[in-house]
Amino acid sequence: MSTLVAKSSILLVLTFMLVFPSVLATKNPFKESKPCKRLVFYFHDTLFNGTDTTNATSAAVANITGLDRKHKFGLLVVFNDPLTKDHHLLSPPVGRAQGFYFFDMKDDYSAWLAYTLVFNSSEHKGTLNIMGADLIYEKTRDLSVVGGTGDFFMARGICTIQTDTIQDDYYFRLKMDIKLYECY
Amino acid sequence: MSTLVAKSSILLVLTFMLVFPSVLATKNPFKESKPCKRLVFYFHDTLFNGTDTTNATSAAVANITGLDRKHKFGLLVVFNDPLTKDHHLLSPPVGRAQGFYFFDMKDDYSAWLAYTLVFNSSEHKGTLNIMGADLIYEKTRDLSVVGGTGDFFMARGICTIQTDTIQDDYYFRLKMDIKLYECY
Amino acid sequence: MSTLVAKSSILLVLTFMLVFPSVLATKNPFKESKPCKRLVFYFHDTLFNGTDTTNATSAAVANITGLDRKHKFGLLVVFNDPLTKDHHLLSPPVGRAQGFYFFDMKDDYSAWLAYTLVFNSSEHKGTLNIMGADLIYEKTRDLSVVGGTGDFFMARGICTIQTDTIQDDYYFRLKMDIKLYECY
Repeated sequence: MSTLVAKSSILLVLTFMLVFPSVLATKNPFKESKPCKRLVFYFHDTLFNGTDTTNATSAAVANITGLDRKHKFGLLVVFNDPLTKDHHLLSPPVGRAQGFYFFDMKDDYSAWLAYTLVFNSSEHKGTLNIMGADLIYEKTRDLSVVGGTGDFFMARGICTIQTDTIQDDYYFRLKMDIKLYECY
Repeated sequence: MSTLVAKSSILLVLTFMLVFPSVLATKNPFKESKPCKRLVFYFHDTLFNGTDTTNATSAAVANITGLDRKHKFGLLVVFNDPLTKDHHLLSPPVGRAQGFYFFDMKDDYSAWLAYTLVFNSSEHKGTLNIMGADLIYEKTRDLSVVGGTGDFFMARGICTIQTDTIQDDYYFRLKMDIKLYECY
Repeated sequence: MSTLVAKSSILLVLTFMLVFPSVLATKNPFKESKPCKRLVFYFHDTLFNGTDTTNATSAAVANITGLDRKHKFGLLVVFNDPLTKDHHLLSPPVGRAQGFYFFDMKDDYSAWLAYTLVFNSSEHKGTLNIMGADLIYEKTRDLSVVGGTGDFFMARGICTIQTDTIQDDYYFRLKMDIKLYECY
C-alpha cells in the first residue's frame, strides 16, 4: 500500500513539474536576454539628389516644412535600401528594407519609420515588418517587429537601431540588431 | 499489484498526452495550414483622375519622383476602398479598406502599404490592421495582420494578396486572403 | 483496491484541473475587461498655421486633394504632440506621441494614423507603437497597440480614442485609453 501511495505521489510531482512550466510559459514566455532568433544587418540609405538615379535608393516625397527647417520637420522619404552583413555599402546585399521615414521633431533630429525587410536568398525567404520612433539623439533606439511572413511566419520582436555613419545630407548607414522573441 | 502498476502507467501516459499538447501549443501554437479564421475579399481601388469625384476612392497625395518615373517611385496614394465578396466592383461592399500605399522600387513595380479593414455589418463589426510590402512582381505577397479590434479583438495573422486585375493607371483589384492564427 | 482506484481517480481529476486551465490560457489568454495594464492620456495636436512655430506641434506635409476638399481627403500631417494626464494643454507632458495622420473619407470626416508613444520619465521609460483607423464620426474608436519597447517590452493591446475637443482647424485634443493585454 505504501508503495502505491509513493507511486501516486511521484506521479503527482511529475504532473506538477510538467504542468507548471507550461503555465509559466503561457504567461511570461519571453526573456529580453534570450531571443529565439537574432539577425544583425547594416542598412544603407542613399538619398536621391535630383540627378544620381543610379546610386540613389531613396527619394523625398514631401518637403521640409516651415515648423523647423533646420531639423527637417516633415521631410518624408520613401526608401528601398540594401541590407548588408558588414558595413560596406558595396558588399552583396542579403535583403532590402522597403518603407518610409519622416522627420518629426523641433529643436533636435528625430524621425519615425515603418518598413519591411524583404529576404529572398538561400539563407532566408520572407519578410519582417517593423515600425517605431527613431530618436536620433539617442545612441540606440528600439523599434517593434510587429509581424513576419515566410521563414519569419508570425514573428515578433525588437529591432535595435544605431547610427553607424552619416555623410552629409545624402548617405547614412544604420546598424540593425533584430531580436525575435516569437518564432514559429 | 500488477493491475495497479498498469493503472498508474495508463495514468502517466494520459498525463503526458494531456500535458504535451499544451506545451507544444504554447511554443508553437500556429500551423500555417490551420488558421483559426479565414476571410476572402476583393479590394477595389479607383484612383482620382482629377475630375471623377463620384467614382474615385483614392487620391495621390505625393507625386512620382525623378528616381524612376516609369515605375512611379514615390507616388503616395491615400485610399478608402470598398471590399466585396466577389470580384464585381458594384457588389454590395462588406467593409472598407482605409489606408495608404506608395511605390518604392526602381526597375520594377513594387509598393508598400498599411491599412485598416473596417467592418460594420451584421456579419462582422470591428477592424483588422495590416501592413507590409506589396512585391507586385510576385504572383502572391504576404502582408502581416498586426492587430484587430471588435470581433477581431487582438487578432494576428497573414493577409495574402494577389493582383486580380489592373485597368490602365486608374483601377486595380486585389484578392485578399486573410488567415488569422490568433483569434480570441 | 477501491482506495487505490479512488486515489487514481483523484489524481486524474487533479491532472485535468491542472492541465485544462493551461490549455485554455494558451488559446484564450485575454479578457477584454481585464487588461494587464491601463494608461489614460490626453493628446494635444496644434497644427502649424504657417507662422506659429513656437506653439505648433504638427505640420501638414501633403495637401487636401480635390476628391473631397470639405472633408480634407488626403491632408497628411506629421506630429510630435505632448501627452498629459489631464486635459489641460499646459500640464506637464508625461510623454510625446510621434507619428502621422491623414484624412481618408469622402462625405464625412475620417482619418488613419500610426504613431509611437515615447516615455522618458521616472514613471515610464520606453515606447508603445499604435496604428489604426480613426473613424471620427464614431464616439470612440479602437486602434491596435502592435508592439512596445523598454517598460512596455513586447506589449500588445487596444488604444481607445475619443475626441475631447476640436477648436477650429488648428487644435484638437483626444483622450486615449490604453489597455494592454500582453504585458511581460
